[in-house]
Amino acid sequence: MGKVKCQLAISLDGYVAGPRQSLDDPLGVGGMELHRWVFELEAWRGPHGLEGGDTNPSSQVIREAQDVGATVMGRNMFGGGPGPWRDDPPWTGWWGEDPPYHTPVFVLTHHPRDPLPMQGGTTFHFVTDGIEPALEQARRAAKGKDVALAGGARIAQQYLAAGHVDQMDLHMVPILLGRGERLFSDVGDNMHGMQLVRTVPMRDVIHLRFGRQK
Amino acid sequence: MGKVKCQLAISLDGYVAGPRQSLDDPLGVGGMELHRWVFELEAWRGPHGLEGGDTNPSSQVIREAQDVGATVMGRNMFGGGPGPWRDDPPWTGWWGEDPPYHTPVFVLTHHPRDPLPMQGGTTFHFVTDGIEPALEQARRAAKGKDVALAGGARIAQQYLAAGHVDQMDLHMVPILLGRGERLFSDVGDNMHGMQLVRTVPMRDVIHLRFGRQK
Repeated sequence: MGKVKCQLAISLDGYVAGPRQSLDDPLGVGGMELHRWVFELEAWRGPHGLEGGDTNPSSQVIREAQDVGATVMGRNMFGGGPGPWRDDPPWTGWWGEDPPYHTPVFVLTHHPRDPLPMQGGTTFHFVTDGIEPALEQARRAAKGKDVALAGGARIAQQYLAAGHVDQMDLHMVPILLGRGERLFSDVGDNMHGMQLVRTVPMRDVIHLRFGRQK
Repeated sequence: MGKVKCQLAISLDGYVAGPRQSLDDPLGVGGMELHRWVFELEAWRGPHGLEGGDTNPSSQVIREAQDVGATVMGRNMFGGGPGPWRDDPPWTGWWGEDPPYHTPVFVLTHHPRDPLPMQGGTTFHFVTDGIEPALEQARRAAKGKDVALAGGARIAQQYLAAGHVDQMDLHMVPILLGRGERLFSDVGDNMHGMQLVRTVPMRDVIHLRFGRQK
């Protein structure tokens, strides 16, 4: 069976998004600074339909994280707020016609909706009965490959606290955001058997991988 | 002129001490876990009067941090609580007769007291007029060498927020404490020109050095 894994960019002071997050500014004030290192990478640009880009030790970290058979995400990550989906015209999220997932994606929401097939192999499925049923469905769809928890942070927190995460890649960016949304808030002190298994130090980001001892 | 530098052991979730700190348990519940890696090092054991110990890449990090001409610390780090010093018998802190500092140490406190010379070159000076006068006195005493901010965390926070820190070594221990005292709380988003300048990744600790670009 594949692993359940997540990757998160996090500031030195522990924030995964800046303050005042909104539908117009989902990363919050300053949150974009956490992701600059990845936008330059060919390993990120290719799946997002962009040409060119750099290759460096971060590339392999990103490629490994992208090697999944299914994805789970929260409704805000899909592109919806707390209300019902907008349906005139049908709202297909903010990932465009060819989302960068190229796998089945299970969106946690309170609002039922039929599956939404997109170009490039991404189909959004909407799951209304909680994190465990969503994970079960994602595992089945992944057919033995890994399942990615795509975010947001609250989704990662819930799966972490419940002990469902087998591998966590933290991309630590050596800046302070000062305020915003913390990853490690109300998740307790239990790593559920995960330990630091790899560190890839770069100038603008330090990749920390936590996994289970074999 | 020497640098003002600090070193702090910090958990993955940002804590420099566990919850329920007290005079009997100054590191708080679980806080000792942040320091296990250092107790095994010869570079730490020697200055603390202990024999033996390991040498590894962490040793050099510790030696560099110990290379100072004077030290500033808070009253709790010296060994005093919020009340006046106990003086019958005279209270000399909890570092024993031969404290591991071997330099002048400037203790921030509200309670005046005469300087307290100890064995091995450590003399405790008690400063009642704030962080900047304490730093000025330490700079003079250091005679061109670096000044260490020994802690606790609130002392480091105050000097960080005021932009007085030239170099910060964070010893990040890949565990979660869940609760306790955070380093990056109310210190804002200003690194005052410091950037990540070195990463030394070990299995049980990752040494991050922040300094000013030359």
